[in-house]
Amino acid sequence: MSNMRLKEQLDNLFNPKAVAVIGASNTFGKWGYNVLNRALSHKQGRQVYAVNNKEPEVMGLKAYRSVVEVPGPVDFAVITVPFQDVPAAMEDCVTKGVRSAVVISGGLAETGEEGARVERHIAEIARRGGIRFIGPNCLGYCNPYANFCTAPFLPPVETGRVALISQSGNSGQSILDYGLQMGVGFSKFISSGNEADLRFEDYLEYLGQDENTDIILGYVEGLREGRRFLELAREITRKKPIVIIKVGRTDVGTRAARSHSSALAGSDVVLDAAFKQCGVIRVNKLHEVVDVAVSLLGQPLPQGRRVGVLSMSGGMAVIAADALRKEGFELPPLSPATMEKLNSMMSRRWSGGNPVDPAGDFVSYQALWPMIEDGGFDAIVVIGGVAMTSGYATWAPATMKPATEEVGRLMEEAELDAIKTTIDLMNKHHKPVLFTVGSARFETEGKVPLKLRESHLNLYPDPEESAKVLGRLVRYSEYLGPRTSSLQVAEKWRAK
Amino acid sequence: MSNMRLKEQLDNLFNPKAVAVIGASNTFGKWGYNVLNRALSHKQGRQVYAVNNKEPEVMGLKAYRSVVEVPGPVDFAVITVPFQDVPAAMEDCVTKGVRSAVVISGGLAETGEEGARVERHIAEIARRGGIRFIGPNCLGYCNPYANFCTAPFLPPVETGRVALISQSGNSGQSILDYGLQMGVGFSKFISSGNEADLRFEDYLEYLGQDENTDIILGYVEGLREGRRFLELAREITRKKPIVIIKVGRTDVGTRAARSHSSALAGSDVVLDAAFKQCGVIRVNKLHEVVDVAVSLLGQPLPQGRRVGVLSMSGGMAVIAADALRKEGFELPPLSPATMEKLNSMMSRRWSGGNPVDPAGDFVSYQALWPMIEDGGFDAIVVIGGVAMTSGYATWAPATMKPATEEVGRLMEEAELDAIKTTIDLMNKHHKPVLFTVGSARFETEGKVPLKLRESHLNLYPDPEESAKVLGRLVRYSEYLGPRTSSLQVAEKWRAK
Repeated sequence: MSNMRLKEQLDNLFNPKAVAVIGASNTFGKWGYNVLNRALSHKQGRQVYAVNNKEPEVMGLKAYRSVVEVPGPVDFAVITVPFQDVPAAMEDCVTKGVRSAVVISGGLAETGEEGARVERHIAEIARRGGIRFIGPNCLGYCNPYANFCTAPFLPPVETGRVALISQSGNSGQSILDYGLQMGVGFSKFISSGNEADLRFEDYLEYLGQDENTDIILGYVEGLREGRRFLELAREITRKKPIVIIKVGRTDVGTRAARSHSSALAGSDVVLDAAFKQCGVIRVNKLHEVVDVAVSLLGQPLPQGRRVGVLSMSGGMAVIAADALRKEGFELPPLSPATMEKLNSMMSRRWSGGNPVDPAGDFVSYQALWPMIEDGGFDAIVVIGGVAMTSGYATWAPATMKPATEEVGRLMEEAELDAIKTTIDLMNKHHKPVLFTVGSARFETEGKVPLKLRESHLNLYPDPEESAKVLGRLVRYSEYLGPRTSSLQVAEKWRAK
Repeated sequence: MSNMRLKEQLDNLFNPKAVAVIGASNTFGKWGYNVLNRALSHKQGRQVYAVNNKEPEVMGLKAYRSVVEVPGPVDFAVITVPFQDVPAAMEDCVTKGVRSAVVISGGLAETGEEGARVERHIAEIARRGGIRFIGPNCLGYCNPYANFCTAPFLPPVETGRVALISQSGNSGQSILDYGLQMGVGFSKFISSGNEADLRFEDYLEYLGQDENTDIILGYVEGLREGRRFLELAREITRKKPIVIIKVGRTDVGTRAARSHSSALAGSDVVLDAAFKQCGVIRVNKLHEVVDVAVSLLGQPLPQGRRVGVLSMSGGMAVIAADALRKEGFELPPLSPATMEKLNSMMSRRWSGGNPVDPAGDFVSYQALWPMIEDGGFDAIVVIGGVAMTSGYATWAPATMKPATEEVGRLMEEAELDAIKTTIDLMNKHHKPVLFTVGSARFETEGKVPLKLRESHLNLYPDPEESAKVLGRLVRYSEYLGPRTSSLQVAEKWRAK
């Protein structure tokens, strides 16, 4: 199969003209209800047909007993019938000339030999009829650029430069949900299920060429074409970062994966080494997938392992030092020029070195900026609030809130100016700045959080998370090699 | 020093009759302002005096030039003057007959030799005058039982059975804040600072005997009396769990700790082994201190390492299996009786084993209960919402919210009943149940979250956290040994 052929097939799959929901239902809560509901709410410019072999009408639409009976052409079907009825539904699709499909239905290979037999049968029918399909045992996909979605439980998905392929529907949704909260826009979300036809590797190949996609995220339980994955990854990661969470790392986890998505996981250690060789950024927790994506979108890649820490808590500075050290970073001394600047602005209580801790006073942007400019650092980790000039808008205790609305407004403006200066310095010096602020990460109101989200400046919940993300970034930067190439990647996103 | 003497001294320190704030200030935001403000707001039944050698009046109180000039007796002082003025202030306290003090002031041993010299001088004056003190370079303490607090930035602290000793003021506050959010009440909070006089070990000894304290939490940068700590811990952990986060684990972290709290950390590996030998529960992140405390308060200790997993997401089930395996747990098969019950209530899509995954349907309490009763498990990890019968009250997408208020009320009642049944089964079978639900952990409204918080049923953000906490609990249970003794500990709390 040539790339052009795959591209054409998936272009149709992700942007169909006429959709049939086979197994459409009037019963609130059933998959056939939820999927049709979702398809109808993204209907604009395309036909949507309901297929139900018992009811004459579903959700106010005329229902056809079979997709074959639909009067007009149908190029795409979502199949949500019980597992034993899927082969017949797929046969009907072939007869009708459907080109691509999503099989939502579960109860197939993941449940044992009977289901596996039916699943093979479905795949055979589709192959014979030239139908490419996602699933079974999946949510299908979301394509915000075409305003079409088969996954029923998602909030509205913003368009953006990040694609997500997930072998778990639920975990994929969690990643997507968290990404949307953090201001990430998506080019595609694919829930790949049991991958009886289209596989993780097919989506990867497609997205590697997709002009709307700059970063590819993946949730993996088991790769069916390991060698192909690695060949693709080696090529793609030179232009687009690939961030993967691979679960099923232990014997028990692998067993659980088999009964979930019928995935056959290989040795985790071998895979880990292979990922490294191909520049794949591997993470260990769901939310880390998003945290790394946000950093890639918003920050220059670090050009080395020397980190400056600015913390308004001495305890957190120690925790940060431990965490950074474990990720292989150094905390070198401040330059004499930086020392002089900090001495002039802080009380003699301050820690007098790196980590910089004002020890009881508040940290300020004025202390951060000389650290960004200090040639001895490749990255800065800030702990204890972004709201550092004005200080109080986002995190201060109630007793320290601005006295009047006007004071609040002035603080907010000063804060926005300071963030702008920080971003400018960060880009000028090609140096990421990671803010660590605890629960404030979920703050959603006000101009400051909005500005941070728009700029893809993540707020990490603790120093360990900041250190971990920075570790992923520096290893990718080292993989890409000399400064220019990694900056090309970073500059490319920035230009968007 | 005998225990009785230490007890008497600290009893006075934690519940003084007449308080002088030395360095009290009219300037909003200064420590001398914040501390006096806090002392005044907890004034009831005790005298509070302001001492300021320049101003005639502070916050509407007559200000004395020195504590010596205060007309009535003063048994306790909070000192917030600049570091070089602390010795004179301490001398005045000796002259006045003050018995105990908190030295908030920083700029001492943590900043280098000059500060260390002044700090030794302060300690010498206090020792000579028979004054015990907390600090310097600290927030002091909070004693909710006596309604007294010197730490300025805390929300109101509920009384309860948990004590916290912290060598970092800020980290201590973070633990306390999170604890309060999670429904933990406190017997004491102590920010121990540089420990020039009273040390972590003194507080530990005191709290070991404290009738209001059942669990002792600690944030440690360096132990000044390692051997004494371990002797105390060995004795105390037979009756009261000790949960410690020890930072400064790496060379870089240790260096940062020295310039923060002047702590001298020993080898982390040695300490780790020593902690194990004494039954100390060691954790690695600030929030974990609280998570373990909540579980100890609300759950029976697990009596073995066999875990049943019930998950509404197959992907999360795999992640849970991996995480539990890494903590040394097993996921044995379901008993035939449990299999039969689950087969009768779930679609054939379900995973058909442990982890139990309904695969697209919702998990229900009806599936959880047979798992708790299954003699093959020592603990259950539930993933994907507590709201499982009614389902929708706390976590469901907006489209699935109850149609009317009345339906909502019925759902809530069903949910509360189901939680009660779950707790009863959990206690009957001496088996912890850990709920994993993502962001719902921060939900604060409604009867269901309230009931969960009151019952100390924690909601963990991801399966890794549930596995980690369960790992801490099982190792403590194994340390305590045969079933009876660990249950005694658990039963004791439950009786409160």
